[in-house]
Amino acid sequence: MFGIWGHEKAAEITYYALHALQHRGQDGAGIVTYENEEWMLHKDVGLLNDVFSRGQLERLSGRHAIGQIHYVHGANVGYDNVQPHLFQSQKDSLAIVHSGNITNAYELRGELERSGSIFQTESDTELLAHLIRRQGAHIDAHAIQTALENIVGAYAFLLMTQDCMYVALDPYGIRPLSIGKLHGAYVAASESCAFDLIGAEKMFEVQPGELIRIADDGIHRKTIQRVKKQQLCAMEYVYFSRPDSDLQYVNVHAARKRMGIQLAKEASVCADVVTGVPDSSISAAIGYAEASNLPYEIGLIKNRYVGRTFIKPSQELREQGVKMKLSPVKGIVAGKRVVMVDDSIVRGTTSKKIVTMLKEAGAAQVHVRIASPAVTNPCFYGIDMSTKQELFAANYTLEEMCDIIGADSLAYLSPEGLEKAIVATTNDSSKGICNACFTGNYPVAKESKMLQAKTAE
Amino acid sequence: MFGIWGHEKAAEITYYALHALQHRGQDGAGIVTYENEEWMLHKDVGLLNDVFSRGQLERLSGRHAIGQIHYVHGANVGYDNVQPHLFQSQKDSLAIVHSGNITNAYELRGELERSGSIFQTESDTELLAHLIRRQGAHIDAHAIQTALENIVGAYAFLLMTQDCMYVALDPYGIRPLSIGKLHGAYVAASESCAFDLIGAEKMFEVQPGELIRIADDGIHRKTIQRVKKQQLCAMEYVYFSRPDSDLQYVNVHAARKRMGIQLAKEASVCADVVTGVPDSSISAAIGYAEASNLPYEIGLIKNRYVGRTFIKPSQELREQGVKMKLSPVKGIVAGKRVVMVDDSIVRGTTSKKIVTMLKEAGAAQVHVRIASPAVTNPCFYGIDMSTKQELFAANYTLEEMCDIIGADSLAYLSPEGLEKAIVATTNDSSKGICNACFTGNYPVAKESKMLQAKTAE
Amino acid sequence: MFGIWGHEKAAEITYYALHALQHRGQDGAGIVTYENEEWMLHKDVGLLNDVFSRGQLERLSGRHAIGQIHYVHGANVGYDNVQPHLFQSQKDSLAIVHSGNITNAYELRGELERSGSIFQTESDTELLAHLIRRQGAHIDAHAIQTALENIVGAYAFLLMTQDCMYVALDPYGIRPLSIGKLHGAYVAASESCAFDLIGAEKMFEVQPGELIRIADDGIHRKTIQRVKKQQLCAMEYVYFSRPDSDLQYVNVHAARKRMGIQLAKEASVCADVVTGVPDSSISAAIGYAEASNLPYEIGLIKNRYVGRTFIKPSQELREQGVKMKLSPVKGIVAGKRVVMVDDSIVRGTTSKKIVTMLKEAGAAQVHVRIASPAVTNPCFYGIDMSTKQELFAANYTLEEMCDIIGADSLAYLSPEGLEKAIVATTNDSSKGICNACFTGNYPVAKESKMLQAKTAE
Amino acid sequence: MFGIWGHEKAAEITYYALHALQHRGQDGAGIVTYENEEWMLHKDVGLLNDVFSRGQLERLSGRHAIGQIHYVHGANVGYDNVQPHLFQSQKDSLAIVHSGNITNAYELRGELERSGSIFQTESDTELLAHLIRRQGAHIDAHAIQTALENIVGAYAFLLMTQDCMYVALDPYGIRPLSIGKLHGAYVAASESCAFDLIGAEKMFEVQPGELIRIADDGIHRKTIQRVKKQQLCAMEYVYFSRPDSDLQYVNVHAARKRMGIQLAKEASVCADVVTGVPDSSISAAIGYAEASNLPYEIGLIKNRYVGRTFIKPSQELREQGVKMKLSPVKGIVAGKRVVMVDDSIVRGTTSKKIVTMLKEAGAAQVHVRIASPAVTNPCFYGIDMSTKQELFAANYTLEEMCDIIGADSLAYLSPEGLEKAIVATTNDSSKGICNACFTGNYPVAKESKMLQAKTAE
Repeated sequence: MFGIWGHEKAAEITYYALHALQHRGQDGAGIVTYENEEWMLHKDVGLLNDVFSRGQLERLSGRHAIGQIHYVHGANVGYDNVQPHLFQSQKDSLAIVHSGNITNAYELRGELERSGSIFQTESDTELLAHLIRRQGAHIDAHAIQTALENIVGAYAFLLMTQDCMYVALDPYGIRPLSIGKLHGAYVAASESCAFDLIGAEKMFEVQPGELIRIADDGIHRKTIQRVKKQQLCAMEYVYFSRPDSDLQYVNVHAARKRMGIQLAKEASVCADVVTGVPDSSISAAIGYAEASNLPYEIGLIKNRYVGRTFIKPSQELREQGVKMKLSPVKGIVAGKRVVMVDDSIVRGTTSKKIVTMLKEAGAAQVHVRIASPAVTNPCFYGIDMSTKQELFAANYTLEEMCDIIGADSLAYLSPEGLEKAIVATTNDSSKGICNACFTGNYPVAKESKMLQAKTAE
Repeated sequence: MFGIWGHEKAAEITYYALHALQHRGQDGAGIVTYENEEWMLHKDVGLLNDVFSRGQLERLSGRHAIGQIHYVHGANVGYDNVQPHLFQSQKDSLAIVHSGNITNAYELRGELERSGSIFQTESDTELLAHLIRRQGAHIDAHAIQTALENIVGAYAFLLMTQDCMYVALDPYGIRPLSIGKLHGAYVAASESCAFDLIGAEKMFEVQPGELIRIADDGIHRKTIQRVKKQQLCAMEYVYFSRPDSDLQYVNVHAARKRMGIQLAKEASVCADVVTGVPDSSISAAIGYAEASNLPYEIGLIKNRYVGRTFIKPSQELREQGVKMKLSPVKGIVAGKRVVMVDDSIVRGTTSKKIVTMLKEAGAAQVHVRIASPAVTNPCFYGIDMSTKQELFAANYTLEEMCDIIGADSLAYLSPEGLEKAIVATTNDSSKGICNACFTGNYPVAKESKMLQAKTAE
Repeated sequence: MFGIWGHEKAAEITYYALHALQHRGQDGAGIVTYENEEWMLHKDVGLLNDVFSRGQLERLSGRHAIGQIHYVHGANVGYDNVQPHLFQSQKDSLAIVHSGNITNAYELRGELERSGSIFQTESDTELLAHLIRRQGAHIDAHAIQTALENIVGAYAFLLMTQDCMYVALDPYGIRPLSIGKLHGAYVAASESCAFDLIGAEKMFEVQPGELIRIADDGIHRKTIQRVKKQQLCAMEYVYFSRPDSDLQYVNVHAARKRMGIQLAKEASVCADVVTGVPDSSISAAIGYAEASNLPYEIGLIKNRYVGRTFIKPSQELREQGVKMKLSPVKGIVAGKRVVMVDDSIVRGTTSKKIVTMLKEAGAAQVHVRIASPAVTNPCFYGIDMSTKQELFAANYTLEEMCDIIGADSLAYLSPEGLEKAIVATTNDSSKGICNACFTGNYPVAKESKMLQAKTAE
Repeated sequence: MFGIWGHEKAAEITYYALHALQHRGQDGAGIVTYENEEWMLHKDVGLLNDVFSRGQLERLSGRHAIGQIHYVHGANVGYDNVQPHLFQSQKDSLAIVHSGNITNAYELRGELERSGSIFQTESDTELLAHLIRRQGAHIDAHAIQTALENIVGAYAFLLMTQDCMYVALDPYGIRPLSIGKLHGAYVAASESCAFDLIGAEKMFEVQPGELIRIADDGIHRKTIQRVKKQQLCAMEYVYFSRPDSDLQYVNVHAARKRMGIQLAKEASVCADVVTGVPDSSISAAIGYAEASNLPYEIGLIKNRYVGRTFIKPSQELREQGVKMKLSPVKGIVAGKRVVMVDDSIVRGTTSKKIVTMLKEAGAAQVHVRIASPAVTNPCFYGIDMSTKQELFAANYTLEEMCDIIGADSLAYLSPEGLEKAIVATTNDSSKGICNACFTGNYPVAKESKMLQAKTAE
């Protein structure tokens, strides 16, 4: 998500900012702008580069824009679910981008449909718009606040009208969201790396439960729901965010390196080289190598197949040895005792493949070190991590897991170690993470019947 | 370049192997196969993924294939110059891929045209085909050898007829070329990383002056020109090859790391963090950090804009701070003394931009360390490095350069240090590098008048 | 518009039927099908052939389908306005295609928005869906009938639920709509030429004010609004429908030929050849030639530039003589007295160009004969004929018009002549045409304030 | 084929002129221009509109251009065979477009290959270029004349160098080719309809055996081979050319109408209506109707599926009645005795389908009248008419044919009738047609062994 208010080149700036957020999704992209009583929208499925041509970008005139990179999880597949959503009416049109997961969406939608509302998509974003519209003819902060009172779950959204832009975050602050400045314009982004790319300056991070109004007369902040200690998604630190972003004012690469250092302290091993699984585990691997005084080497290399057009190798060719995403570097691992640092394990299948690959390339030993705790519980707030039945660590002991993936040893970072690595440099007690996927302590109630069923599996 | 002889899925294997070679060029791609008296060719400008669809790949049936990734240098722009070239005739058709640069191409082509030959392209590859054709109606090793006697320059090619595949390397071995095995098939590739990706086993590297014939009855090697000490292009080690490839049986990542270590020995500096310019300088930066006992950090991040469809920021936006390829990581460099390791400097403009970027992000000092010697001479063998006038180090002293790029200090690796880092692990006196761009000692005579002019500039 | 209920190849049949209707619009196309609780929709802007690929067509499985060719008039531009519209809900989803123009749309939409409805498009079709949805949770004939009571204007729609298909026509029967049979399936189409192309048999034409329900148990017809004498749009006969269609059981080509014959009776002239403006005036021109005993010749030829990709000649080239749509045939018209038969004149600019063209090609005289009466009033029921200010015949006398277009003489068919030519073969007093654009006698009240303003212009 | 010499907008004019020639082929299109020592070429498979975008057209700068519409016959499939061909060399580059068929191409190419020439395509056009190049270093009229002395067959070509344009026609004048004028520029086109569309004036038709040189100093005509009576391909009159073209100064529509009139005289029948098979038979049908005093009606209508993207109905759907190219008009033919006029019969399958279609639509009788003589011999000069075995009239008697296609009667125009209809208005004894496909009297010797084999089949 990215928004900008008050810049001559609003759409172009948004385009570049979304580039910095491309890692958050590869399923679609869109930008909406407003000028002279006219809304302009372009969006489509695919990578940002495939969605926009120069001509399309130039047609998006105006000084205000919001845009999003689309990440498919659950049912929100296809063009119609790509954001922004633009809802035009005879007066008071609105555009909206949203990321998160509303846990009582099914019930809310059912109620609205029974009284005559028509939905175009499966998205929670459209639901937000309907709830806001039902508050009365005019959209203002009061209407939005009333609408949000019905909602349970993780949400972060940018809503644009012809007069202003609203920025809102759920009471737990599960998703990251920051506000910045750029040559007199205000910008909002999911990750601060977007600010660096466009040359903007970060002002502050949106706090849990805040509703912010940005207009030509400046920024107005208001806390609309009781603020608790923030519970920012731990996976943002572990692998989802870019290493050059700051979360809760902590640099992600530095946090990951500390996770690697902490992991070396908790689970050292006698070995020759340390290698990381590219890209998101490199920082932790370097930290592990430094802390254990072992050389860090490129033992695995990523094959940067790009875009939707890549032709995947058939099962037959994969069995014959054609690699899909990673190749081992024989010259580095052959005959060596290798520490392979990865950021996390979800289903275990990837880890097994990598260990096998390294051994086939001649590694004498492979010690797997995971720079986060074992994932034993599904996520209901927007990270696609399947049901409990499919989670590797929820179904096997550490020993069994080590055996299954074929490693010589396996160790996870402890939950305490993770917390320590993240908050090591901050003394702010209002900061914290959601570690429900490791511990099962969900910050938000699981009201929805559908969700209860899913947890029980 | 990649070729395969004797595999059911020849075209598919070639497609995946070419993926591993994508870094060698982004300007075009093509594959040709042969089966049942029929040649099948598909090629186009663009990235491999954009050039091939599943349907097109499946149409390329047959057990033999050659393919190439196209890299534009000089005049070989456009569809017609994309390889492979297929030359069909009423009998004895041939397909060919070539990489390198024939220095007397202009003269040879002029002669052939005067006696009635028609050329379709600007490429040296077509010239090779004409020279071979003029040897007589039938193509065999003798005809190829005779044709090669006229040629001066760097060349490496794969030539396929309906009976066999020929592999040839110039007498100096300027470009890398290896032969491997895959389930009974023979494969040839510019870089050994292609073998790892498809699961092939490297057999040997093609030696300078060799002409190899691969057919159903096996491999026949012959040295057709007096072999001298190999002079493999130094830039292959410095930045062109992938870190997971081996050149002259030396792993590239390991060689680069040794360059970094050597550089730390030659030019240490008091600093807080070491960072590398992604991607090709990372190995050297890690080596530098290890040797100087400083932490390696991600201080610069690459914006992976992908493909030809990316819309470049206007000059105006770039001046306002929108970054094109690299962003600094504020959280890492702010307030720090930074060692910025890069692989090479050609024109100096990029180095200047990066130093400025780091300082704007708050770096207290920026010490630039280049993991190769200063480039003072143009290349005539295929690396696009402009004329002498444009080469930074050919026109300024070290002090002037440091000043121009705005660094606090600047140091290059010495030519001896480079040589040492590369051959550190090998005692084979037949191995060596072409370092003409650093020293001006060209291994191949500069016969062509055009080239003489260019050097004189 | 086309719909089919109960055929294995519903989507494919719809695709071919829509081909027969391509002349009704070139702005978009779409098909929706239903099978096993799943709705499948594909639509896009562009010609039918550009919108559908084989793969997309094959994904549209199911035994029921509706589709439409999109014709832009007014504000319904862009992807979102292309039909069918599919409105999915937790229960009782519906798909709909509509053609016509609801004259009180603006007021109805305003009311619905004020009570919380969100519209996605500008289309009357979506308005229909909202009105029906607001009748209660379940969609049935009663809900549709109640919704239609609010609507004023011309409409013809196909509405599909998972159980059945509804077909409705406004009380005046302004648009044509027919029901047919195809191997046990029922089909509905705007024009009967679609039936001929797919090999279906026409059963009957939908009568004004009818609501028809088609389901697996057959067809149920009901007249829901007081039926008056039908007032089918005269322009359907004059140029909009295909010559091979029947309207009110009258063949269109035959009707047009009779218009030409009648025109020859009303406005004969001494000449050498008769020619028609392709394509829609050819039938009338042949009729005129037969009745006046003059040879019919191809004096004008259509340049069949196809699709959206055609590059239009610049103003400069057009002034230099490059023709856009029509070329004169010098060999035919040079030195001749030419009768040029056209179907209608709206703004007069085209007529002027053609007369000029014929004279430049050497025609001695050009006598313009229009096979319909003068258009003096705008249309509010879906034909795009601009405002009164722009209508040629509303602003000039016959003499002035003849002068402006540069013809040697000009004559229109009389309104009585038109009526006679159309109903010549029928004695059915329930049949009739809407000739409001010739006479100003609008069948449907002009309730809307917007429309009153437009008429007043 | 189209060429222009000396116009500011050479490429654009060529684009529009090629539109007028689109009916001559749908397989590819291309334009080449020259300016300031640079040649610019764009070509591709597909319809003209699909091949060119505005940007591509604008890049083709320069005052001289040649272009062609590609028609696949024999082996000249695919991108490489699309014309123009551009052959660049260090000096004296040339571009060429050609239409026709060189009957001794195989032998000539074999000879050239044996002495070292490399061919890129299967096309006769490339052969022409090689023959000309082999005459010496410089291209001039003498070199072209010498090259043409080796060639046997039908040819018409435009050859452009940086100084001038050459236009050549074979000694029999089998293909049409005209020269015109446009605002000081010279233009050349296969058909004169291209002149009308761009507003050019026809100067003269190229005579058999002429070699014309067009340069900035004007036009120079030379007859290089003994001129015989022209033998222009009869099929150009019968169906290939556009009705608005003139051939041998005779308007094609008028000639076709006379064929219809003549056919009515030779083979009248008692009937109710006359109808033509669109598009090329309409003129003849109108002539037939006029001469026999029967009404001409639209009894068959063409479904204008456009471009390569059309999805063809499956065999199953076609059997169920889905029509591909033509639909019958029930309202016209039901209960009537129909005369169906077609331009020619090649294999008989289409005729059979149309007769069946008309009968299924209710026609009481169907009398087939063919406005050209029976085709009993294959063509060697560029019209794709298969081998003798496949020609309907070469294998059956008139009675058998009538029976097979299911008609109530069948008649062809006599060869004498055809000749008479074409030359009716001309007294020029140098004009004449090649009627080899009707009579077997081939104007050009059938030297090639391949051709002898084909004729013998």
